[in-house]
Amino acid sequence: MAQVVPDLVSLQNPVFRSYLFYCSILVIKMMGMAILTSVQRYKNKAFVNPEDVKSLKIKPKTDENVERVRRAHLNDLENIPIFFVSAFLYMMTSPTEYMAKTLFFAFTVARIVHSIVYAVVIIPQPARGLSFGIGFLITGYMALTTLLHVL
Amino acid sequence: MAQVVPDLVSLQNPVFRSYLFYCSILVIKMMGMAILTSVQRYKNKAFVNPEDVKSLKIKPKTDENVERVRRAHLNDLENIPIFFVSAFLYMMTSPTEYMAKTLFFAFTVARIVHSIVYAVVIIPQPARGLSFGIGFLITGYMALTTLLHVL
Amino acid sequence: MAQVVPDLVSLQNPVFRSYLFYCSILVIKMMGMAILTSVQRYKNKAFVNPEDVKSLKIKPKTDENVERVRRAHLNDLENIPIFFVSAFLYMMTSPTEYMAKTLFFAFTVARIVHSIVYAVVIIPQPARGLSFGIGFLITGYMALTTLLHVL
Repeated sequence: MAQVVPDLVSLQNPVFRSYLFYCSILVIKMMGMAILTSVQRYKNKAFVNPEDVKSLKIKPKTDENVERVRRAHLNDLENIPIFFVSAFLYMMTSPTEYMAKTLFFAFTVARIVHSIVYAVVIIPQPARGLSFGIGFLITGYMALTTLLHVL
Repeated sequence: MAQVVPDLVSLQNPVFRSYLFYCSILVIKMMGMAILTSVQRYKNKAFVNPEDVKSLKIKPKTDENVERVRRAHLNDLENIPIFFVSAFLYMMTSPTEYMAKTLFFAFTVARIVHSIVYAVVIIPQPARGLSFGIGFLITGYMALTTLLHVL
Repeated sequence: MAQVVPDLVSLQNPVFRSYLFYCSILVIKMMGMAILTSVQRYKNKAFVNPEDVKSLKIKPKTDENVERVRRAHLNDLENIPIFFVSAFLYMMTSPTEYMAKTLFFAFTVARIVHSIVYAVVIIPQPARGLSFGIGFLITGYMALTTLLHVL
C-alpha cells in the first residue's frame, strides 16, 4: 500500500525488465500476423481493394487462407492489447518476481502457439482452444488481482 | 510543468489507484465479450472454422446473434484501448482527483451500458448511440487536454 | 542499465513529453475513423443493425464506401495500439531525444497519410503500402531495440 512506484517502473526491477522483454516479443509476434496476411494475399492473389489489383489485372476477391490469418490476427487484437494493460496494472501491485515472470512467459508462449495452430500449421481442436484459454485466464487473473489490490 | 511523475505513478496517488481500478474492470468487461461470443456460437451452433465443427458433424456458418456480439466486441476494440492510453496520458497532466475519477467512472459505465444494449438486451436507439457517444467524448476530451498541456 | 525511470516518466523529460504529444494526436486520429464511418453510413444509408434503420424505414445493408473506411480503421487497430506499447517500451531504454522524437513524428505522419490515401482521397498504390510500411518498420525497430536492450 505504501509502495512508491519508482522502484517498480525501473530497469532495475526484474519484473519490469521482464515486462519490457515479453511485450516486445508480443509486439513483434503481432506484426508477424500482418506479414502472414500479405504472404497469403500474394500466394492466393486475393486482394480486397480495387487499387491493389489494378496492375495485376485481376478482380478483388476473398480467400479462405487469407481470412483464416485475419481471424487469427483479430483474435490477437482481442487478447494481446488487454494483456499489455492487464500486465502493467498487475505489475503495479508488486507481485513476486517468480509469479509475474511465469505469467508473462506462459501468456507469450500460449499466444505464439495459438497463432501457429490457427494460421500456420492447422491442428485440430482443442489445440487452439487451449492456447486461447491459457492466455485468457492469465489476463483475467492479473486484472482481478489488480482489482482486489486497489479496492 | 515542473511536475515529476513519481508522485503520479504511485498507488499513493488516488487518481492512479482509480486508473488501475477502472482499467481492471474494463479489461474484464472486454473479456466478457469473448465469453458472450462463445455462448452465442454454441447456442446457435455457428462456428466459422472447419476444425471447430468436425466433432459436431455440422458445417461452418455465420449467425446474426453471433455477429451482433462480434460487432459489439469490435466496437470495444475501437474504443477501449484508446481510452487506456488517453486516460494514462491525461493522468500525467495532473488533473484534479474529482475530475479524473468522474471521467474514468463515466467512461466505464458508458461502455458497460453500450455492451448490454448492443448485445445482451437489445434496446432501440438512441441507447447505444448515447452510451457510445459519452465514452467517445471522454476519450477525446482527455486526449485533447493532454495535447494542450504538453504543447 | 543503472537507469532509474523517474527521470524518464516525467514531463521534464522531452522524450516523454513528445510521447504524450504524439499519442494524443494518434488517439484523436483514430477517433476520426469512427466519425468518418458514421459520415459514410449516413451518406450511403448503409447501416448494419435493424434497430438503426427502424426510423429511416430502410433495410440494413453494407456499402463499399463504408467498408473501405472500416478497413482503414481496422488497419489502425492492428498498428497503432502496438505503437503505443512499442514506443513506451522503447522510451524506457533511454534513446536519444532526437532519435525518439523523429521516430514518433514519422510514425504519426505515416499513419495520417495512410488513413487519407486509404479512406479519404483514394490514391493508387504504392501510397498506402509505403505509409503502412514506414509505420510498421518504426514499430518493429522500437520493439527490437527494446528486446536487445533488456536481454
